[in-house]
Amino acid sequence: MSFVFFINGLVMVFFAALMGVVALLFPDTSKMFGEAALLTGFMGGTLAMASSPRTEGLRPLHTFLLTSSVWMVAALCGALPLYAYDLSLADAFFEAMSGITTTGSTVMSGLDETPRGIILWRAMLQAVGGVGFIVTGIALLPILKVGGMQLFRSESSETGERELRNATMFASATLQIYFALIVICGLLYFVGGMSPFDAVTHAMTTLSTGGYSGYDASFGHFDSAFLQWTCTLFMLFGALPFSWYIRGLRHGRWKSEQVTAMLVSLAVSIGALSLWLMITRGEGLFDALRLVAFNVISVVTTTGYATTDYTLWGPFAVVAFFVLTAAGGATGSTAGGAKAMRWLVAFRALKAQIRQSYAPHRVTFVKYEDRPVAPDALSGVIAFFVLYAATFGVMASLLSFFGLDMSTATSGALTALANVGPGVGDIIGPAGNFATLNTPSKLVLTFGMYLGRLEMATVYALFAPLFWRELMTAR
Amino acid sequence: MSFVFFINGLVMVFFAALMGVVALLFPDTSKMFGEAALLTGFMGGTLAMASSPRTEGLRPLHTFLLTSSVWMVAALCGALPLYAYDLSLADAFFEAMSGITTTGSTVMSGLDETPRGIILWRAMLQAVGGVGFIVTGIALLPILKVGGMQLFRSESSETGERELRNATMFASATLQIYFALIVICGLLYFVGGMSPFDAVTHAMTTLSTGGYSGYDASFGHFDSAFLQWTCTLFMLFGALPFSWYIRGLRHGRWKSEQVTAMLVSLAVSIGALSLWLMITRGEGLFDALRLVAFNVISVVTTTGYATTDYTLWGPFAVVAFFVLTAAGGATGSTAGGAKAMRWLVAFRALKAQIRQSYAPHRVTFVKYEDRPVAPDALSGVIAFFVLYAATFGVMASLLSFFGLDMSTATSGALTALANVGPGVGDIIGPAGNFATLNTPSKLVLTFGMYLGRLEMATVYALFAPLFWRELMTAR
Ligand SMILES: [K+]
Ligand SMILES: [K+]
Repeated sequence: MSFVFFINGLVMVFFAALMGVVALLFPDTSKMFGEAALLTGFMGGTLAMASSPRTEGLRPLHTFLLTSSVWMVAALCGALPLYAYDLSLADAFFEAMSGITTTGSTVMSGLDETPRGIILWRAMLQAVGGVGFIVTGIALLPILKVGGMQLFRSESSETGERELRNATMFASATLQIYFALIVICGLLYFVGGMSPFDAVTHAMTTLSTGGYSGYDASFGHFDSAFLQWTCTLFMLFGALPFSWYIRGLRHGRWKSEQVTAMLVSLAVSIGALSLWLMITRGEGLFDALRLVAFNVISVVTTTGYATTDYTLWGPFAVVAFFVLTAAGGATGSTAGGAKAMRWLVAFRALKAQIRQSYAPHRVTFVKYEDRPVAPDALSGVIAFFVLYAATFGVMASLLSFFGLDMSTATSGALTALANVGPGVGDIIGPAGNFATLNTPSKLVLTFGMYLGRLEMATVYALFAPLFWRELMTAR
Repeated sequence: MSFVFFINGLVMVFFAALMGVVALLFPDTSKMFGEAALLTGFMGGTLAMASSPRTEGLRPLHTFLLTSSVWMVAALCGALPLYAYDLSLADAFFEAMSGITTTGSTVMSGLDETPRGIILWRAMLQAVGGVGFIVTGIALLPILKVGGMQLFRSESSETGERELRNATMFASATLQIYFALIVICGLLYFVGGMSPFDAVTHAMTTLSTGGYSGYDASFGHFDSAFLQWTCTLFMLFGALPFSWYIRGLRHGRWKSEQVTAMLVSLAVSIGALSLWLMITRGEGLFDALRLVAFNVISVVTTTGYATTDYTLWGPFAVVAFFVLTAAGGATGSTAGGAKAMRWLVAFRALKAQIRQSYAPHRVTFVKYEDRPVAPDALSGVIAFFVLYAATFGVMASLLSFFGLDMSTATSGALTALANVGPGVGDIIGPAGNFATLNTPSKLVLTFGMYLGRLEMATVYALFAPLFWRELMTAR
């Protein structure tokens, strides 16, 4: 239990260090970042020193508490400088949660004139949140069988447990690849004409599939085919399983059902929507492909950059983007959403189920990556879908209760839960902004992002009385 | 295989007899109904006599084929008089499928002036479809473990297999109760001031949770609190498990988790929406309760009558009705939708799954009605939810591709799949009509109602090549 406090203390110290970096780089915001750094660092340091780093006696139970609290503390730390800058408490909390969960929905407008220190801070939150999500999943949560967290385990065991027995080693490999991808992406952005600052911050929010931009026009600010194609590619890179990179780079084995499924479904969606755009709006092939590929990949990878308001492409596009929002990237990546592997496993379970009924004499296994899926992994996948649907329904009802119209309420609920960013409609669509929503709606959405990033079950467990009884008796 | 043709032949003869009844009762439409009866009767009779009633060698496989074909043949038979009357081929097929599946969406306007023979025919389709759904599930499909059809089995086994070993006996008890409820409801309608014709046709479409009315204003045509409360009650009766009535009447055991869950969630929804209506529109308590109870129960039981355009109650009401559409009635009733028992089982599985992760030393069973749920029943429930979500997504995308706006496309897909009837928005909302939709959209919706009524898996199996290979080798 004391270990939970210890880690939270370290997280605060880490965020204090990041604030310090911003304070040093940008004189115009150095006072607020400096003060926030001192406050956070002092509190975090005290907490860490007052508690114990001993991990003995840690049980799955504690991991729930650890994960939930670390992400909440990170959001609060992230909110501090934003609150000191200009935002209301609810807005700062919303913006920081949106950053750390790599959702990328923003309540800030006038980004082009916002101090660059704030822009860097938002990018930092996403960069940390993105890799934090992978590392949380891979290194910290293999004991969990819940929700889909165990899917990380299957991803990482895929890579050959012998070589990567050490979770720390695996986490460090992930960090290296993540960092390398950000650097390459940033260099290409620079080559393509971005300023060094834009290149760095946008590379951070691209690979983290976060989608914060330094400009109100989002990535549409950069009117360059080269930059847009680069971004398209690197958003995709951020949403592929990092264990897949590690295995591929070390062993040359690049075959992955999940990656194949993602690429095939992306190709189909991009093809269909490009055709739609060419027919209904008379776009040329290459323009249509560029527009569609960027925006589809942005939504499926849950990045949420936009180069254009695709909700103006007609009702088919609107519904298609709504459906794509639910798809999500790959497990073990920075992306949110339901994830390709869950859809794969669910559809195979379904097919097996139907086949079983008309051909009961045939033995049917549900397989994934050539191995049978364990029953508890299967029920984890299912639990996730039911939680997803139910949470979506409750959130949409609450949002509409607080006065949002139907498109805004439903797409807002979905975009928060899947950590995508933009919704549908005039208010929160790709051309809009979350600023004008009322405070209760913002709080619902903030909690939705938190639930989505922690894949729900981790948070819901904290609401079970039995959880706390178990925790009390645990030591 | 020959048995499948035999039953389809009988179904056609049965529909011919119904057409004959209409022809005898209403002189103004007797020619078209008479001709349709002769044609259908001749074809059905020939088919039945040319095939064999022998049931030996029947396998689960054949039951799929039987169910799918019977419902398709019934819809085609139902469409014949409507086509002969006035409707286009697509419209007649839509209207008949909507009738036989007890969906109740209509493409016909000017109902008040429509010949009463046609109005009776629509009511007959729903009355037959409603009880047909229960009997299909209980008597014909206990061998199926797919989708949720096996849920009927658990409902019927609940009633004590010893007494009701005979499926025929069970089906006849169901028919008796169904008929008795229609008679009581019709009498109350008559007492409340309806004409005998209105009382009969509306009792038929109330208990079948079908929702066809003889008037453009739907049940709102009858401006009587007594009639509306009667209807509210009997819609609910139609959506409760018929096995529950049988068990209750025979053994006095009325305890049922599913019924309790339905009543509790109805009470909560009605309470919340009444409050909303009282606050936002200043309605009095009793008026609010009557309005809300009628329309909520109409949607949850998937009847789809409307007394008012509840989509004008503001965004919270719209989203609430959207969510309620997905809820559905009880298994083993005439209602469509996901069904209360599936939600119950899914949420318990979920809770068990989460609990398992933080308290792995505790053994957790998923129970329903005090008995553990078998793993294959559990995966049937799950398969259903995934199919439901995926089919909904594909249908909504197709509808929007054919030019419907987002609200119409999404609510249209859901209302067809759940066999509810009205959607949301100006076009297909409770005050609207499906007439103005284009033909491709109507076909998508027609197929959606068919899928929804057969709980999807039965139809999807027919698309598997293995199904046909198995069928070929079966004899
Ligand atoms: K995002
Ligand atoms: K209905």
